[in-house]
Amino acid sequence: MIHVSSLDELKEALSSESDHPLALVPTMGALHSGHVELVRHAKSRGFHVALSIFVNPMQFGPGEDLERYPRPLSADLDLCQKEGVSLVFTPNVSEMVSENSSIRVSHPVGSLYCGAYRPGHFDGVLTIVAKLFHLFSPDIAVFGQKDRQQLFLIERMVAELDFPLKIESVKTVREYDGLAKSSRNRYLSESERLIAPFLYGRLLKAKEEGVPKNHSDQQAWLQEISKNLSTLGFRPDYVSLVDRETFLPPTRDSSGLILLAAAWLGKTRLIDNLEMDE
Amino acid sequence: MIHVSSLDELKEALSSESDHPLALVPTMGALHSGHVELVRHAKSRGFHVALSIFVNPMQFGPGEDLERYPRPLSADLDLCQKEGVSLVFTPNVSEMVSENSSIRVSHPVGSLYCGAYRPGHFDGVLTIVAKLFHLFSPDIAVFGQKDRQQLFLIERMVAELDFPLKIESVKTVREYDGLAKSSRNRYLSESERLIAPFLYGRLLKAKEEGVPKNHSDQQAWLQEISKNLSTLGFRPDYVSLVDRETFLPPTRDSSGLILLAAAWLGKTRLIDNLEMDE
Repeated sequence: MIHVSSLDELKEALSSESDHPLALVPTMGALHSGHVELVRHAKSRGFHVALSIFVNPMQFGPGEDLERYPRPLSADLDLCQKEGVSLVFTPNVSEMVSENSSIRVSHPVGSLYCGAYRPGHFDGVLTIVAKLFHLFSPDIAVFGQKDRQQLFLIERMVAELDFPLKIESVKTVREYDGLAKSSRNRYLSESERLIAPFLYGRLLKAKEEGVPKNHSDQQAWLQEISKNLSTLGFRPDYVSLVDRETFLPPTRDSSGLILLAAAWLGKTRLIDNLEMDE
Repeated sequence: MIHVSSLDELKEALSSESDHPLALVPTMGALHSGHVELVRHAKSRGFHVALSIFVNPMQFGPGEDLERYPRPLSADLDLCQKEGVSLVFTPNVSEMVSENSSIRVSHPVGSLYCGAYRPGHFDGVLTIVAKLFHLFSPDIAVFGQKDRQQLFLIERMVAELDFPLKIESVKTVREYDGLAKSSRNRYLSESERLIAPFLYGRLLKAKEEGVPKNHSDQQAWLQEISKNLSTLGFRPDYVSLVDRETFLPPTRDSSGLILLAAAWLGKTRLIDNLEMDE
């Protein structure tokens, strides 16, 4: 496994990899079994895997957890080694983002749902992901479905700007009790950790209930879900139903619906989502 | 010379070109000797030249000249053939831009100068240029210095997003009387055509005068230039002095300054610029 931190080293390392089909797994580190599944997905399809670890300041807002975001580099590198990653890139902030960095890639859906509560977050994501795509020129890039809005936006970016690569996604990996794996779960206190899985639980129950047919019933249903989450001890940012193709509110023509939720437990913000039609 | 119009044909044509270093010359057609210089620049450096002709609706605002923009395709193709262009791409609008095209690449300088008078114009330019870069994967792309703000923004995009290519630029080509070559010059009436070269003339005079040292003198000087243009029969949108590195107002640290102007003659909008320190 090659581990590089500078852009020059990266270029050199990639030129030695140029004979192999390459998969890029962009991460913010603090790797867990969700990330491992992304690596395994790529390897099972015959790709060499490059994994980037970069806590991208562009996607954190003022007052968010940029400073306290976990950075267990040594454990991350061990895990990459164990999983057969070929190349790990851990860039310095200064080579990725300068104070003059002003170009942004954006999409209107980036200001909805999580974007409404984290202004500029998705612009920061898309911009850094575009940069990583150019640096690595991978054949595929692999993302998790837990960050569903992020996945949608990256897919749109690749399609509309004709990036010469394919986006593949992997199902959300969950703890034994249903909690979606997340680097931020380690922020949870013991009692919060006991409540946390009920976020997914409420989405599962919503799927069982079935999506109401008309708009006003849907709104009442979403409010009820949000109220239930509050009763359980969450502070919901939003519970929203979206068309899987447009990530906009459902219409009569919607071929599939996704229920999205973001909710706080203490100082930890959790997100999850569930397809309503699968 | 290969001429293709669909994305599928383009991919096929490019795969047969993949052994040669490739230069992309993105244009809106209505080719003139300014474009020819871009092609010759690339050829003189040993590149095969791909030239795209696409009147990009994303960069035209409501009420602008999208419909009447000249599209002399047959003459353009003849010129490309004569200049030894290897590949001409004339995409259909529907394959480049759909009603769902919502991703945008932007930079704050894109809302200044021409961008202040043409909201969304530079986002439209950057977005389509990013797409063309991904479609062609050229080694270099060549642009004219007449569209100086556009050149600045494309250079920033390539640098900040690490596009794997180099931007090269070619000096503005001018008519015998100094008027910058432009596809829009053909809109000028006979009498407007006689006045038009005075735009460049006034920039040359400004350079002779020299840039005033302090900010308030600079402002008065710019206003005087604008007033002179009005007296000559122009309706100036703006006359601005910018730092060549930042495209923002000059500071004490500015290492070079560019004078930019945009002005209307009748129904034709002309732009020009001049380095003040060369």
